[in-house]
Amino acid sequence: MIAKAPCIPCLINQGINAVKRLNLDDDKQKEIALELVRYLSSLQTIDKSPAYYAYYIQKLVKELTGQEDPFYEIKKLSNAKAYSILKNLKEKDLDLREVLILSGAGNAVDFAIKDSVNLDDILNIGVGRFEYESFVEEFLKARSILIVGDNAGEIAFDTLLVEKLVKAGKEVVYAVKSYPILNDALMEDAIEVGMDKLCRVIENGSDKVGTFLEDCSEEFRKTFYESDIVISKGQANYETLSSSNRKVFFLLTVKCKVIEGEAKSPQGKVAFFVGGMYDG
Amino acid sequence: MIAKAPCIPCLINQGINAVKRLNLDDDKQKEIALELVRYLSSLQTIDKSPAYYAYYIQKLVKELTGQEDPFYEIKKLSNAKAYSILKNLKEKDLDLREVLILSGAGNAVDFAIKDSVNLDDILNIGVGRFEYESFVEEFLKARSILIVGDNAGEIAFDTLLVEKLVKAGKEVVYAVKSYPILNDALMEDAIEVGMDKLCRVIENGSDKVGTFLEDCSEEFRKTFYESDIVISKGQANYETLSSSNRKVFFLLTVKCKVIEGEAKSPQGKVAFFVGGMYDG
Repeated sequence: MIAKAPCIPCLINQGINAVKRLNLDDDKQKEIALELVRYLSSLQTIDKSPAYYAYYIQKLVKELTGQEDPFYEIKKLSNAKAYSILKNLKEKDLDLREVLILSGAGNAVDFAIKDSVNLDDILNIGVGRFEYESFVEEFLKARSILIVGDNAGEIAFDTLLVEKLVKAGKEVVYAVKSYPILNDALMEDAIEVGMDKLCRVIENGSDKVGTFLEDCSEEFRKTFYESDIVISKGQANYETLSSSNRKVFFLLTVKCKVIEGEAKSPQGKVAFFVGGMYDG
Repeated sequence: MIAKAPCIPCLINQGINAVKRLNLDDDKQKEIALELVRYLSSLQTIDKSPAYYAYYIQKLVKELTGQEDPFYEIKKLSNAKAYSILKNLKEKDLDLREVLILSGAGNAVDFAIKDSVNLDDILNIGVGRFEYESFVEEFLKARSILIVGDNAGEIAFDTLLVEKLVKAGKEVVYAVKSYPILNDALMEDAIEVGMDKLCRVIENGSDKVGTFLEDCSEEFRKTFYESDIVISKGQANYETLSSSNRKVFFLLTVKCKVIEGEAKSPQGKVAFFVGGMYDG
């Protein structure tokens, strides 16, 4: 999908949010914010996905602050908090639909920021466009499933989904980023929440925001095209994979009006729907 | 007060919000958003109030769209909706503290956007820093009070406050903007909600966001300095009058983290406090 006008201030905001983690003084933060503005102002036009620009914004933040991974601490905290919540959830014996909703809801929660995350709030977040029947139809005949992961913290919630899929006899692969970008999960996050004990975890070979297939490793691309089902988590993966040439199930919490319009699913709710420019 | 880093994307967002009213297509909106980014990127530094830059952003929007008053429709709608809510309120016989809270809460509600505004929600918005005792002390000895108004819609709620002050024998002046800027109330809004029937309404002589005293008319400045009490409504007036050389009571709903920090009062709540670089 292509960025819209409201994505422009949001991109700057994303950069500022990264900078905020670093305890820099106000003047330094403002100086960096102005540099982000200057980057965007240098563009003739905005005709790529929000994720495309988000990458360059985050790259600039890294350069200007000298911090390779501004979200490092927050990722650790997110994993730990999400993992502790999970303990209570495991007793609930959720069904497939529920673990999908939970995985989508996990996309919404900033575990590192929220001091106490109310489990009921997560389970009751509510769903918008939720094409569960389409998924079940594919699921029943599928042998292999790729999950394109998104954030740290969220990845702990995804372990319940993976567990459910594996128990149903599916061969599951979970993909993480190869290099730190935003609060996206890396291999170390997958190991931290025990994902590697449940399924094969691969890196996507990329340091970009979202998933730019041309930038990904051969291994990732092969898995992406050869898996019977691909579940893509989060907005940035939707932004970049919505125009990919295969069928993809997008699972996310809709976090802004722009994505609400694109996904045709209300803001604040979990969405789960088929997309991608596939043949049939 | 001086703008902080988060004000930078917020300023662009404010411009986009103005553009949104005009039913322009996505590409045109994006083109304008990029022009707003280019304006900010031309600045060497950001060392003035957010309101200062907001004015130039809105000026650019007017130039780029050819619309002198992008908020015209929304202001009419706001007045009408707020006025209809008021009818129910008049029966409640609110006391001085309650009309102050209501006036501050009116600053929060976007009457034109909300389809139905729940009166109880407004009355129960809650207060943060609320220096009512200081106000009462001044109020008892005051003869004249100036209210520096903010938005259309909100101005209807302010009529209850003005009514209360007039009934207490005070000489009240209510100030509106002289030229359309954002959704700020003009003389025609004051007349629409009947403010002119309750007290003297003056224009401030300015087309700026907030209140830049050096840009205001002699009449406004005289009233500002000579009134026993000044009540300033809303964030932009706070941003610009917090450094004025007289005591001012600021009454607003805190709408962002930056103002939360400056006003030392929590976001989402009504704040009422003494400020201004006065002598004692």
